[in-house]
Amino acid sequence: MCQIPAPAGHETQLTEFVLRYVQQHQAQWHTAPKILAGSEFQDCIILVFGRPRTAVFAHLDSIGFTVRYGRQLVRIGGPVAETGYRLVGEDSQGAIDCLLVVDDHTGALSYDYHRDLDRGTELTFYCDFRETETTVQSCYLDNRLGVWNALRLCETLEHGIVVFSCWEEHGGGSVAYLAKYIYETYGVRQALISDITWVTEGVQPGQGVAISLRDSLIPRRAYVDRIRRIAAASGIPHQLEVEGSGGSDAKELQHGAQPWDWCFIGAPEDNVHSPDEIVDKRDVESMLALYQVLIKEL
Amino acid sequence: MCQIPAPAGHETQLTEFVLRYVQQHQAQWHTAPKILAGSEFQDCIILVFGRPRTAVFAHLDSIGFTVRYGRQLVRIGGPVAETGYRLVGEDSQGAIDCLLVVDDHTGALSYDYHRDLDRGTELTFYCDFRETETTVQSCYLDNRLGVWNALRLCETLEHGIVVFSCWEEHGGGSVAYLAKYIYETYGVRQALISDITWVTEGVQPGQGVAISLRDSLIPRRAYVDRIRRIAAASGIPHQLEVEGSGGSDAKELQHGAQPWDWCFIGAPEDNVHSPDEIVDKRDVESMLALYQVLIKEL
Amino acid sequence: MCQIPAPAGHETQLTEFVLRYVQQHQAQWHTAPKILAGSEFQDCIILVFGRPRTAVFAHLDSIGFTVRYGRQLVRIGGPVAETGYRLVGEDSQGAIDCLLVVDDHTGALSYDYHRDLDRGTELTFYCDFRETETTVQSCYLDNRLGVWNALRLCETLEHGIVVFSCWEEHGGGSVAYLAKYIYETYGVRQALISDITWVTEGVQPGQGVAISLRDSLIPRRAYVDRIRRIAAASGIPHQLEVEGSGGSDAKELQHGAQPWDWCFIGAPEDNVHSPDEIVDKRDVESMLALYQVLIKEL
Repeated sequence: MCQIPAPAGHETQLTEFVLRYVQQHQAQWHTAPKILAGSEFQDCIILVFGRPRTAVFAHLDSIGFTVRYGRQLVRIGGPVAETGYRLVGEDSQGAIDCLLVVDDHTGALSYDYHRDLDRGTELTFYCDFRETETTVQSCYLDNRLGVWNALRLCETLEHGIVVFSCWEEHGGGSVAYLAKYIYETYGVRQALISDITWVTEGVQPGQGVAISLRDSLIPRRAYVDRIRRIAAASGIPHQLEVEGSGGSDAKELQHGAQPWDWCFIGAPEDNVHSPDEIVDKRDVESMLALYQVLIKEL
Repeated sequence: MCQIPAPAGHETQLTEFVLRYVQQHQAQWHTAPKILAGSEFQDCIILVFGRPRTAVFAHLDSIGFTVRYGRQLVRIGGPVAETGYRLVGEDSQGAIDCLLVVDDHTGALSYDYHRDLDRGTELTFYCDFRETETTVQSCYLDNRLGVWNALRLCETLEHGIVVFSCWEEHGGGSVAYLAKYIYETYGVRQALISDITWVTEGVQPGQGVAISLRDSLIPRRAYVDRIRRIAAASGIPHQLEVEGSGGSDAKELQHGAQPWDWCFIGAPEDNVHSPDEIVDKRDVESMLALYQVLIKEL
Repeated sequence: MCQIPAPAGHETQLTEFVLRYVQQHQAQWHTAPKILAGSEFQDCIILVFGRPRTAVFAHLDSIGFTVRYGRQLVRIGGPVAETGYRLVGEDSQGAIDCLLVVDDHTGALSYDYHRDLDRGTELTFYCDFRETETTVQSCYLDNRLGVWNALRLCETLEHGIVVFSCWEEHGGGSVAYLAKYIYETYGVRQALISDITWVTEGVQPGQGVAISLRDSLIPRRAYVDRIRRIAAASGIPHQLEVEGSGGSDAKELQHGAQPWDWCFIGAPEDNVHSPDEIVDKRDVESMLALYQVLIKEL
């Protein structure tokens, strides 16, 4: 899944992959969901299981680069840039496999390749997927792991909504209408954000999934406290995160015109937004386990 | 009221205080309002009087600090930070009364206390309420005075809406849905923002309530001009404010999907966002008097 | 049209001009539109032709300055400021014709005039309209040319919506409700942004209207690709633009609670946001020609 290009604004291929996956696997799931997709939802997908009380949001899109003029590149979202990173894509002349170049003085971004690329071509990190007994490492674990978590959650889900959103890495733009639709159609206004966070001095790999008490925004305390009580009672390993910056799909829930409660819950990764994102498998396991409990008890 | 902690995201205690106050006092009010509160409105409250044409917005929340890792603090909103400010709060081990510490070199925030505090604990300024014949001084006059103004306005209100909102100091998040609900239910799209502004070279204490012609956003001129005409005719002392920065609950009205007109009208304070906010009583009086006139004539 | 003052928040005069123009000319148009205006739309106008599938957004407002205290000025939007620019306006004492002054050291803005101006007075660039065989030059081509393009498009329009919006230059505030109204009433969610862009190394005057593949936001690739195919097949001269910054009315479409697709299509200008904005007439012609094709084929 990390090999499928899905830069913000051009998520189509991953949307199709997820739709195919759902079609192929839903027969084995505990409950068959109602599948909402198509042009009214742009490249997003909503899966509705039973009588939902809570919605899980996982964003499909990733960071990347857009070809500007000459050999210039412009960022999609906030990728780390280092000279020598391998970038891939496709334009009118075929497949592309080039190298990122960062100007030492100006920080300006360009590419090194044997030909010029079409204006507007999107480039993403080349995927070098590495797995050990204890870790997974690749570009775009943020947020393919959040998507993976949401799809695995579907297997046992009885009542709940799973949402696959777009544009999270670049200014948002889909959660506002998805949240409105879900609230107005199903009356649901409790959300969990299935996304990946950062390893920091307070959140260490292997110590369990992180429950974020705040990032640049502050969720409603009463809702987060309920989640903390359920997590504590469950015995599932978890860590509490407190940040002053960063954001997620929750920004659009917070600022939208429905009274959503939300909480970011995700495994921490190191080497954020680089081709070498790395996550401890135990944190992925506790992430899924905690979502399975929360979606039942919230 | 300044002693009740209500940092953005955790306004519950002040919400309960206002609800109790309304229950206890509404029998003495000219008109009994319809009270809208509860989980569909998170920690916000809407009071509807008669056949409303205009809504008054007063935010409940205040600035503060969140405990991060070790002894680190992260800001809630934009509090002034000086070493030695007294901060209070509560965590799993009980009541907290500690001191703020600002690193001279890095500006990093921490606390000085005999024990470590729980992650995610909110701290607010210790309230030292000081009153003279002409002034009130305390932390959180912004926006307890706006709330006070709204509650006093209720006493004589015949037709109008009074709204108590949340998260104003930290990115917003409630006015979008409150504004949508009010517009769709009552057709009201005229707003007054009952909040506190700054003493500047152009707005002096004791010269009357400030009518803001703009801050970082620009309200619709036609609406502000109507308010200026009513204010001029009323004879109530007031000042005209023009700023290029700053914001209020009006941001969400301006950016929401309803055609709200809005105007910020509030007394000016000095020592903004510190424990020593100070306001001239005459400006508070003219604020209430002007709201009483405007809510009738708009 | 460039002489009519319409700083963001005070568009009334231009709104009235456009309404009068529509009343006077619609008899000659192919199709008579339904005209939506009035207080429910603040100072905006919506024209609905036939059975619309696509909406064209042109913003009425311009950049400018607000008088603060003393002789200080505050920006409306992002005008270029150079000492000596001629500014005009009106206050309680009558018409104003003054000069802009920029402090060499602080960059602070003020005005040079024989008297003090009222607080909150809006000033706009004096209009020196210059036309050659190949160019037009004036302040406020951004966005009077976009408005002109939209009005000329009306002449031949059979099915479509034309929207005149406000506040685009200063934080937005009308497109959110216009977009909601249009989507809910007509089911339309395809947009073209009729606005003016920048001459850059990749977008040259005289080479045709610019189709923007992205600015600070990224439109949905599938929609932009459809537009590119129609433009290529049409034979109308056009250029592809790729930027990492800048924005338009599309921001509110992207962030609103409806699944709008959008694309910015506009002639490039040089001397952006100055009194000397200049556009090549061929680019204006190809802009109108491309809109005429797109509104039919999208």
